[in-house]
Amino acid sequence: MAKTAVKTRPTPRKAAAQKFIYDFQEGGAEMRSLLGGKGAGVAEMTRAGLPVPPGFTITTEACLAYLESGGRFPEGLLESVRRHLEALETRSGKRLGDQENPLLVSVRSGAAFSMPGMMDTVLNLGLNRVTLEGLARKTGDRRFAMDAYRRFIQMYGRIVLGLEPELFDAEMELVKGAGGIKADSDLSSNTLEKLADKFRDTVQQQTGLPFPEDPWDQLTRAIAAVFDSWNGKRAIAYRDFNHIPHTLGTAVNVQAMVFGNMGNDSGTGVAFTRDPATGERRIFGEYLLNAQGEDVVAGIRTPQPIATLEQALPEVYQRFSEIAERLELHYRDVQDMEFTIEQGRLYMLQTRTAKRTAAAAVKIAVDMMAEKLITRDEALRRVEPEQVDHLLHRAIDPGAEVKVLATGLAASPGAATGAAVFDADRAAAMAKEGKKVILVRIETNPDDVHGMIAAEGVLTSRGGRTSHAAVVARGMGKPCVAGTESLHVDLARRRFEAGGVVVKEGDVFTIDGTTGRVIEGPVPTVEAGVSGDLEKLLQTADRVRRLKIYANADTPEDALRARQFGAQGIGLCRTEHMFMQQDRLPHVQRMILAQEKGEREAALAELLPFQRADFLGILEAMQGLPVIIRLIDPPLHEFLPSHDELLVTVTKLRDAKKGGKKLERAERMLHAVEELREQNPMLGLRGCRLGLLFPEIIEMQVRAIAEAASELRRKRVRAIPEIMVPLVGAAEELRRSRATIEATLKQVAKEEGIRFDVKIGTMIEVPRAALTAGEVAHHAQFFSFGTNDLTQMTYGVSRDDAEGKFLRRYVDDGILPSNPFEHLDPSGVARLMSFAVKEGREARPNLEVGICGEHGGDAQSIAVCERLGLDYVSCSPFRVPGARLAAAQALLEVGEKKDV
Amino acid sequence: MAKTAVKTRPTPRKAAAQKFIYDFQEGGAEMRSLLGGKGAGVAEMTRAGLPVPPGFTITTEACLAYLESGGRFPEGLLESVRRHLEALETRSGKRLGDQENPLLVSVRSGAAFSMPGMMDTVLNLGLNRVTLEGLARKTGDRRFAMDAYRRFIQMYGRIVLGLEPELFDAEMELVKGAGGIKADSDLSSNTLEKLADKFRDTVQQQTGLPFPEDPWDQLTRAIAAVFDSWNGKRAIAYRDFNHIPHTLGTAVNVQAMVFGNMGNDSGTGVAFTRDPATGERRIFGEYLLNAQGEDVVAGIRTPQPIATLEQALPEVYQRFSEIAERLELHYRDVQDMEFTIEQGRLYMLQTRTAKRTAAAAVKIAVDMMAEKLITRDEALRRVEPEQVDHLLHRAIDPGAEVKVLATGLAASPGAATGAAVFDADRAAAMAKEGKKVILVRIETNPDDVHGMIAAEGVLTSRGGRTSHAAVVARGMGKPCVAGTESLHVDLARRRFEAGGVVVKEGDVFTIDGTTGRVIEGPVPTVEAGVSGDLEKLLQTADRVRRLKIYANADTPEDALRARQFGAQGIGLCRTEHMFMQQDRLPHVQRMILAQEKGEREAALAELLPFQRADFLGILEAMQGLPVIIRLIDPPLHEFLPSHDELLVTVTKLRDAKKGGKKLERAERMLHAVEELREQNPMLGLRGCRLGLLFPEIIEMQVRAIAEAASELRRKRVRAIPEIMVPLVGAAEELRRSRATIEATLKQVAKEEGIRFDVKIGTMIEVPRAALTAGEVAHHAQFFSFGTNDLTQMTYGVSRDDAEGKFLRRYVDDGILPSNPFEHLDPSGVARLMSFAVKEGREARPNLEVGICGEHGGDAQSIAVCERLGLDYVSCSPFRVPGARLAAAQALLEVGEKKDV
Repeated sequence: MAKTAVKTRPTPRKAAAQKFIYDFQEGGAEMRSLLGGKGAGVAEMTRAGLPVPPGFTITTEACLAYLESGGRFPEGLLESVRRHLEALETRSGKRLGDQENPLLVSVRSGAAFSMPGMMDTVLNLGLNRVTLEGLARKTGDRRFAMDAYRRFIQMYGRIVLGLEPELFDAEMELVKGAGGIKADSDLSSNTLEKLADKFRDTVQQQTGLPFPEDPWDQLTRAIAAVFDSWNGKRAIAYRDFNHIPHTLGTAVNVQAMVFGNMGNDSGTGVAFTRDPATGERRIFGEYLLNAQGEDVVAGIRTPQPIATLEQALPEVYQRFSEIAERLELHYRDVQDMEFTIEQGRLYMLQTRTAKRTAAAAVKIAVDMMAEKLITRDEALRRVEPEQVDHLLHRAIDPGAEVKVLATGLAASPGAATGAAVFDADRAAAMAKEGKKVILVRIETNPDDVHGMIAAEGVLTSRGGRTSHAAVVARGMGKPCVAGTESLHVDLARRRFEAGGVVVKEGDVFTIDGTTGRVIEGPVPTVEAGVSGDLEKLLQTADRVRRLKIYANADTPEDALRARQFGAQGIGLCRTEHMFMQQDRLPHVQRMILAQEKGEREAALAELLPFQRADFLGILEAMQGLPVIIRLIDPPLHEFLPSHDELLVTVTKLRDAKKGGKKLERAERMLHAVEELREQNPMLGLRGCRLGLLFPEIIEMQVRAIAEAASELRRKRVRAIPEIMVPLVGAAEELRRSRATIEATLKQVAKEEGIRFDVKIGTMIEVPRAALTAGEVAHHAQFFSFGTNDLTQMTYGVSRDDAEGKFLRRYVDDGILPSNPFEHLDPSGVARLMSFAVKEGREARPNLEVGICGEHGGDAQSIAVCERLGLDYVSCSPFRVPGARLAAAQALLEVGEKKDV
Repeated sequence: MAKTAVKTRPTPRKAAAQKFIYDFQEGGAEMRSLLGGKGAGVAEMTRAGLPVPPGFTITTEACLAYLESGGRFPEGLLESVRRHLEALETRSGKRLGDQENPLLVSVRSGAAFSMPGMMDTVLNLGLNRVTLEGLARKTGDRRFAMDAYRRFIQMYGRIVLGLEPELFDAEMELVKGAGGIKADSDLSSNTLEKLADKFRDTVQQQTGLPFPEDPWDQLTRAIAAVFDSWNGKRAIAYRDFNHIPHTLGTAVNVQAMVFGNMGNDSGTGVAFTRDPATGERRIFGEYLLNAQGEDVVAGIRTPQPIATLEQALPEVYQRFSEIAERLELHYRDVQDMEFTIEQGRLYMLQTRTAKRTAAAAVKIAVDMMAEKLITRDEALRRVEPEQVDHLLHRAIDPGAEVKVLATGLAASPGAATGAAVFDADRAAAMAKEGKKVILVRIETNPDDVHGMIAAEGVLTSRGGRTSHAAVVARGMGKPCVAGTESLHVDLARRRFEAGGVVVKEGDVFTIDGTTGRVIEGPVPTVEAGVSGDLEKLLQTADRVRRLKIYANADTPEDALRARQFGAQGIGLCRTEHMFMQQDRLPHVQRMILAQEKGEREAALAELLPFQRADFLGILEAMQGLPVIIRLIDPPLHEFLPSHDELLVTVTKLRDAKKGGKKLERAERMLHAVEELREQNPMLGLRGCRLGLLFPEIIEMQVRAIAEAASELRRKRVRAIPEIMVPLVGAAEELRRSRATIEATLKQVAKEEGIRFDVKIGTMIEVPRAALTAGEVAHHAQFFSFGTNDLTQMTYGVSRDDAEGKFLRRYVDDGILPSNPFEHLDPSGVARLMSFAVKEGREARPNLEVGICGEHGGDAQSIAVCERLGLDYVSCSPFRVPGARLAAAQALLEVGEKKDV
């Protein structure tokens, strides 16, 4: 299906005088938002005198004007293209459409944020049946010209005319099969010519129109196609995943072609100034001789490591090394460069800040800080807290016995286990059902991105460490093993074979992107600790940040891990998990079902030693750091058997007209469960409401805390428990809960003959608590925002129900900018928090305020907490290191302006 | 069990110089909070020169000082009592404890707010074995003196010493039985003397101490007992029910006794300046000759109508009429007076503003306004909006055939149907289980109040229209039939017999407090309309109020009723009830279970004509008044069969290993229900979320509205539909919903060839919508606060779950001052509302703002809405008249100060 032809009409929005086009020598790095990353990069290189083929950039503003007018070029744009094209012709000494000395250009997208491979590029534009001959004559290489021509038709057909690439691939395979030809480079000039004819026929058949011969027509339609690609499905998906605004638009770069496929003194490659996987300081990259750029990126041929270029073309390599060093110094960051060598001459086509793995990001930041290339604050900003999270997860247990099926390239580190899936749509669908999958492809292309987003990891059988799969996976922080040549992928039968084992769709296996191993079955994983460069970086962050980092931990093991990760205390120790364990549950159930206080107290007395031991372990593990213990929170029916199972049992027993005692017991339990059952348990009898109705539960818990602290004191271990009351909505709830807590503490203190000085505070998780924080603070020594519940109630959204049913759709459709359970909602929830902080501190100036919802580990949310002036954030132990970094970044970002 | 003896110690809180006591001539009506209602009343009457027995008042401050110090008299109080007592002795010419001319006093409680019968009174204080003889000699009536003495011991024993009244009653019955005596007045002097001896023995036995002989000791302990009675169980219950603060304390009045029981030229009574049941302008009341006040109030003898006093003691009656008129003029309100006639001489003991029925309140207000006794604004304030609600409910259908079992006094109007219950505790317990009960007693006393609060109505076989049952029931606005002498109440067997029918506990019957009828079984009731005096009052309110009053109505019948009650529009028309009807439900279910859009649209097409007809009816009924239609709100599973029932059916069919198609069908439905089932449906897929996922539902509803409006336009009926989007939490939700609505309106307008100008607005019921109201208002022409949901989410309380489980307990225990679902929470929820009003109007100055939660009909909440500057309140049709009045009162209250 052909795309619509280009239309032009005056756009009222912009004055005709607006400058829509910049020659490369006019631009610079600072014009990134107008010229896109690529345009700014080539301009900057041009300005620096580096060898860049000449060209010009059409601005993102032109793109937006085009998109907003529904696909019409803004007034004056085409005239301007023509002028800049003429300048380009002058500079290159060639003319577009000239039959003797034709100018060929590339037309490439380039947005302000790097979106590798997400948008469209057309190479060799300007070729037609006439210029083709000119090129052949000019280069003296008819085969080269024919190859360029067929490539152009293929690319133009796909990108501009919107045809399926398979149409061309099939023709190609046919021709190759007929000639017994393996590599594309073995195709003869004649064959290529026939192929080009066939491609043109295909275009005519599919679109009903001949392939456009007029180079100007080719150019304007290619520009329109690049503009349109901004709103392509895969571009939108990528931006959503990476939180890039959809309103930026893309620039278009029109640049004179240089050819890496003009023989063995030609070539093309991509390279990094440091290793983007490890961060090691050495030029790292790949190239192919006698090839065009697309061959490297698409992974069609497996490229050579850049180091071998030193042997192949020593002078070129030398020149390239110098340029690489210059660019890194210039940009003060690792560069990802594209280059082409045309008959021994080096051209730089692009430079941009390199994407890198988490480990590389950390090493590079620490190294560059040591090299004094960047400042401390810059180093802290160079690593994303999420990358730190990635570093701490998913390494294969070194002690585990694994069966390695194959080894590919370690393209993106980390281990992933999941079910094999062989296409992106299915990967996305299965992930939606909550399954963990690994996407297996021969190679990936931009159409696979949604599947990569959905997958735990990616495995390909072709392509290098700069192939599409590798680059995109690294950007996402997902494990990837690429170019696993011993892997036999059978897409049609949905299976792969490796090491004599067949893995079918749905079979679970493991990849280790750190080592490149493909491993049979699931594998035990271990988490990495904090050491080396990461430790250095985090210590730097610790010196900068203001926010304290606490952890949420309910067990001594978690508490210990939290401390190892640098937590300065426990911000949330839930007490009810202890009730769920098998040896305790019968007592808990007896407590719940008790008809009167005495019975309940007896059951609680049984629970006391368990709970005391739990607290003892956690307090001991934290060795004098504060441990904020939250009193029982969930609704009681959570501790009872499932209602539906009981109903089925009772129905069956009744039906069978037997049962006797068994039926009676089941009926009694069913009745009890029905009594406690709630329509909206999240808003029911839970939190402090439980303790106000059954103070004896609080008394038992507080006694357990106090007795544990007392025992540790005897053992000369410092213990700092603090007690937190959940789900307070009215100050009076807290006042009364606190009275019970204090009475119990006093009682135990008297029994033990010691003094306790235990802080008592409250969760702020009910909107009303935030709205009346001034009153609540009279009774609280600290506030801890429970932002999970606070978000649920502020949005009126039950997370359990919503995430599957409509929240994802809301985010996908842009109704919400992000999932408010991942990133703290800055307008609604944070506004409530800001009332609470302000009014709480007015009432009690030394009020300590923190957050213990899951947002506590999220960098965006931590930035909000810094702006709100909180004292601490508390998150799961694994997120503590990332939070340490995020807190430092937040402080740098907020600086002195602390108003929200 | 004896109460603790009086203790005195210095209270540091108050300076010794504080004036704790006022003689009656020192006080006045303006000192109500210090002297209590009764003290202020007698002081005012004393000041006005009316015949009031001399006395003095101990202030509420003294009471508070006493209570706060844990039951110790504040320093200086007793000395002051002694001084004022001496003055009283001088004034009356008698002395406390004097053996010749003893002063007897009454010691009565009197709080700032009237709490009839709720607290304690001791009469005849000062009597002992010596003064008794003096009194006998002085009055020449030994029988009278003995009767006063035994009454004193009885009362003092009960009130001050805390003994069970039954102890004395039993002795009395014994003596009466032995002597074959029926009336107390038939007891001889000797018998009374023996009775007094027995009473003294009883006191000695029960308390271990002799009955106190020293009048000073009697007095101080009586004062303490009255202080203590402020915190008695029944006083607390009464204050809770009537929202009277617990921190006010009671004053104590010490007054020289006058005796209504000194023969047939003596008597005692209570009377009103106008009829408190009908409002008619005539002296209304009852009296008993030769009796003390307690005889009238307790209903032990059935008293005479006051009119007969004109024959019995014409001069006294004349004097009384004059005083009554003077008092009403003085206080500018109906007075409730207590008087005693001692040997032909009239004494006024108390005057206070009379409690009255709803009907009387309305008539009195309108009449007094017409008489120019009070201003328009005063008239509006004289009627409580809740009283208007009472007027509109619960009249027995005049066309219904009823079987009258008995007729008593029409003591408090309105009809009530419920199960017979014979004691207060059981009434409270059954009401707690949700049962409607009528409390049946021979007579009631303050210990029955909690049962009266719980009951729908009260029936007694003894006592007049000023008996305890009648007064308290009128105060509560509950129907009461009193003094039904043909009723045979058998408390022991828990039944009554009347008209040959036996009604046992639990049997449902009906009382009609408007006519005094006791009726067999349940009876159809009708609601009264607005007419006569009420109409006048409400029209006056309409001229004053600023707030518009809308109604919540979903059917043409409700819409019509709402208009008749004065609604100015429909503020909430729910659209989903229409889905619940039997002929529509199958289509609704088909819509819900549809696997794809086409199927869903087909089902919706079936629903369209139904929904269009629904809207047609409502719009037509409202004849050009606005009708705000809310789009579908509840979660879809509410329209599907019950999950538990399906689970039982499936289990049974599976168990029976039969079923085939039936099982399959049931399984399919169960699966569908489980798919839609939510853990917290209130916070799940409902409201605008439904419409965003399934826009075709909105499209159908909007089409139905538009087509209905269009059809009415053809019929030349003016129709003003407005469309309201529920559960918006983010502005973008509203923007998109609105786009769908507008597109559909446009489409229908095109089809019908007309123009629609339909306002589109949103509910503000999710806290976040209030917090981001500025953004939301960009897309909303009106806001309507859904305060039910807003309260649920702001408090984190699910009303369905909480009211039974902990909310009542919270209110009972004082954790919350009131149920936030009844009265809008002024600190939390109203604060959110105030953000929304302010920021919504900043964004859109002509934004219309109203409320459509149940609070819309509650006077306290309406006052909040006035303060917030809302444009309208919307409530159920029956509450519209009360809301009209409440809105006027709110305006008067708020005046010009409109800040919250």
